[in-house]
Order: sequence, then C-alpha cells, then structure tokens
Amino acid sequence: MLFFTQCFGAVLDLIHLRFQHYKAKRVFSAAGQLVCVVNPTHSLKYAPTRCAAVQTSVEQSILPPCHHHEAVHDPQLVPCTCPLFSCPWEGHLEVVVSHLRQTHRINILQGAEIVFLATDMHLPAPTDWIIMHSCLGHQFLLVLRKQEKYEGHPQFFATMMLIGTPTQADNFTYRLELNRNQRRLKWEATPRSVLECVDSVISDGDCLVLNTSLAQLFSDNGSLAIGIAITTSKVHNAEDEM
Amino acid sequence: MLFFTQCFGAVLDLIHLRFQHYKAKRVFSAAGQLVCVVNPTHSLKYAPTRCAAVQTSVEQSILPPCHHHEAVHDPQLVPCTCPLFSCPWEGHLEVVVSHLRQTHRINILQGAEIVFLATDMHLPAPTDWIIMHSCLGHQFLLVLRKQEKYEGHPQFFATMMLIGTPTQADNFTYRLELNRNQRRLKWEATPRSVLECVDSVISDGDCLVLNTSLAQLFSDNGSLAIGIAITTSKVHNAEDEM
Repeated sequence: MLFFTQCFGAVLDLIHLRFQHYKAKRVFSAAGQLVCVVNPTHSLKYAPTRCAAVQTSVEQSILPPCHHHEAVHDPQLVPCTCPLFSCPWEGHLEVVVSHLRQTHRINILQGAEIVFLATDMHLPAPTDWIIMHSCLGHQFLLVLRKQEKYEGHPQFFATMMLIGTPTQADNFTYRLELNRNQRRLKWEATPRSVLECVDSVISDGDCLVLNTSLAQLFSDNGSLAIGIAITTSKVHNAEDEM
Repeated sequence: MLFFTQCFGAVLDLIHLRFQHYKAKRVFSAAGQLVCVVNPTHSLKYAPTRCAAVQTSVEQSILPPCHHHEAVHDPQLVPCTCPLFSCPWEGHLEVVVSHLRQTHRINILQGAEIVFLATDMHLPAPTDWIIMHSCLGHQFLLVLRKQEKYEGHPQFFATMMLIGTPTQADNFTYRLELNRNQRRLKWEATPRSVLECVDSVISDGDCLVLNTSLAQLFSDNGSLAIGIAITTSKVHNAEDEM
C-alpha cells in the first residue's frame, strides 16, 4: 500500500513539474528559451568554513564576510564557489565548473536566454537556488538566496557571477527579469567574478532584491520564474562617458 | 558680510542644481525628456489623521493602514491624496489636482517621459518626494518615500497613482527606471488609483523598493534620477491569457 501511495505521489510530482515547466515557458514566451526547474537547498554553509573571517554581528548579517584573497595564497586558486556547502575544496578557475557539477551536482544550461524556475519559495531562510549557465563561451553561476538580513523578514537576493576573472566579467552584462500579474521587474548589471565572494555581493545588496510580498506577487504556486539573458557589454552607458 | 555669504550660497546652489539637471538629462538621454528637480519634504502625516484605523503594530509598519472607503461616505469624494500632510480636505476627483497644486504646491509636469530628480536622499526617514505628471489626458501622482519598515533600516519606495478611478487606472502602465554605475533597474506595473491609499501600496511593498545601498549606487551626489514613462496598456501579457 505504501509503495502505491509513493508511486502515486511521484506521478503527481511529475505532472506538477511538467505543468510548472509549461507555465514558465508561456510567461517567457520567446522561442528557444530553455526552462530549468531549480530545487532549493537549505543552506548548510553558515558554520565558519572557508570564509575565515569572524562573524562581526549577527544583527548586521547572518553571513560572515568573506576575504578570499586573504585566505587563498595563490591568487589563481579559487575556493569552492558554491555557496551551498561548507566545502574545503580549492582549485584553479579552469576546474571550478567540473568541481561544481561533479561534487555539488549543480546543473549547467546552454543558451543566451534561459528561464530559471525556482521551486518552493516558501521554505524558510537560509535557502539557496543555484544553476550554472553556459553562454558566449563562458560559464556563469546564478545564485538566488532567501536570507533574513533583518530578523523575521526574509528577502530574496539574485545575482550572477562569471566563472572567470573580474577583467573578463567586465565584458558582460546580465539581465534578470520577473514578469507576472501585470508587473515587470528587470535588473541589469555587470556580473561579478567568482573570485569575489557571493556573500559580500548579497550583503552589500548590489543585486536584485525582492521582499517577500513582491516575491509572492511574482510567484506562481510557490515557484518563481526568472528570465536570464547575458550579452556582451560593448556599448557603455551614456553616463559612463561623462 | 552675511548677505554676501548667503548670495554666494544661493549662486552655488543654482550652479549645483543646473549641473544635476544636466547630468540627469545625460543619463536619460532621450530627446525631449523633461527633468524635474524634486525637493524632499519631511513627512508630517504620521499622526493619526484621515487614516482613521488604529495602528495595529508598530513593528509591522510605521504607517497606519488606511480605509478610505470606510471613512468617506460619498465614494466620489476623495480625501486629500497628498501623503505629506495631515490635510483634512475632501473633494471630488475632478478637483484633486487643483487642490494638490494650490494647497500643497506640488509641481505638475507634462510629457510622456520625464525624469524625476529627487534631491537630498540622505535625509532621515520618513521623507517624501512628490510630483504630478500630466500625460495621455490624465494626471498621475509619483510618490517616492523613504521609510523605516524595519527600525534602523530605511528603504525607498516609489509608486505611481492615477488621479482617477481604478477602472481608468487599469488602462495604463507606468515604468520607473534607474540607470547608473553600469546597473539598471526597471519596474513596470499598472498604476493604482488615488482612491486606494498610497500608504497601503507602500506597506504591501507592491512598488519599486530600494534598500539604502542600492539607492546609493544609483544616486549621484545625494540625488536620485528616476526615469518615468507612462503608456496605455492595450496589450496584455501572455501570462494573463492563461
């Protein structure tokens, strides 16, 4: 009996997943867009790990600030960039992608424009949703994090990082787009390099930030669809010329 | 001597204002865009006024929730929609604009696309920046508010409201755009009607929300330029058809 109940549950899950996938495709209806369903992982990294610095203040931020360049002697060596796990791995930039895929089983998607469908947005903070995105000859890491900067008030932070150097990162622009309920929110920025710390990007708030009510407005059945596009940033803003 | 010092100060202010105006024009470089410099007003309304409902929880929100339709017997009568002042005025929708201009000296700007340049973003919360925007045969109210939803953590909230009915508001889409430092943030939504309460829109977070660090990234010398565009929303999103 238990076996049949579980089988039935699995079939229902599959139908639900398929339905979500279809819905996300309709919302971001451009032809050829890949939809990737990304399941959450309750973040386990908040014990002091590779981020060696002491946590200065719990009120200020749950995450300890990172000082990669102090911790890593060879500047070409990158500590594990996956923010999910307390992973002691260090390696060269060239092997970060294979480490993330093999050790942390992070999916990698191809294509200039993809849709990131984060499920179970209701799960308590801290929670992360992560994929890699292969595009324009480079690999990017998309991190969506639910975190309580202010106790009792979880927020969502989304950012994109290049698995490459800061100089390489300057050549790209990434765009994150939410579109639902007659509301649209777009964030465009230069990706940071994974040599910088994703924690500090998020604690600085230099990323797409959503409070819970806005995340709910953009969610559908507890899933949030984020359209992602990456372009090369040859044209500078008018403002930069000033 | 004091006279000369003051005169010199005034000239410096004018030069600074002109420079800010020029910069905002360059950032939003589309031809024919009007730039409006909007000075802040420290909000005085947070004593219980026309919003008759009891403040439920100070932690939840500094602003008391509004129940206009309970307080106003004639549904065509609008309490003063200016969120700045504890104004006892009530009137019909048709005379709201002249009331806002004459009593509260809120500027009105013409044009499909304008730039709202809010000065002195560093001022402590609660502070408001307000203009009216005349476009497509209607008048809209843009409210930028600095408010502490979480004590010690001020945030900026920007929204646009139609000085008209909710049915009329449904025909429009407004867009707010920030663009600086190789970052761009766009918010698009249907404006609310001034018959709804600006306080509840902001406390729901159903608007453009900026934390202080992001506001600083988009600011220039303490001023924040917000590009505003209003269009008629004839085409519905693909998502609405589902």
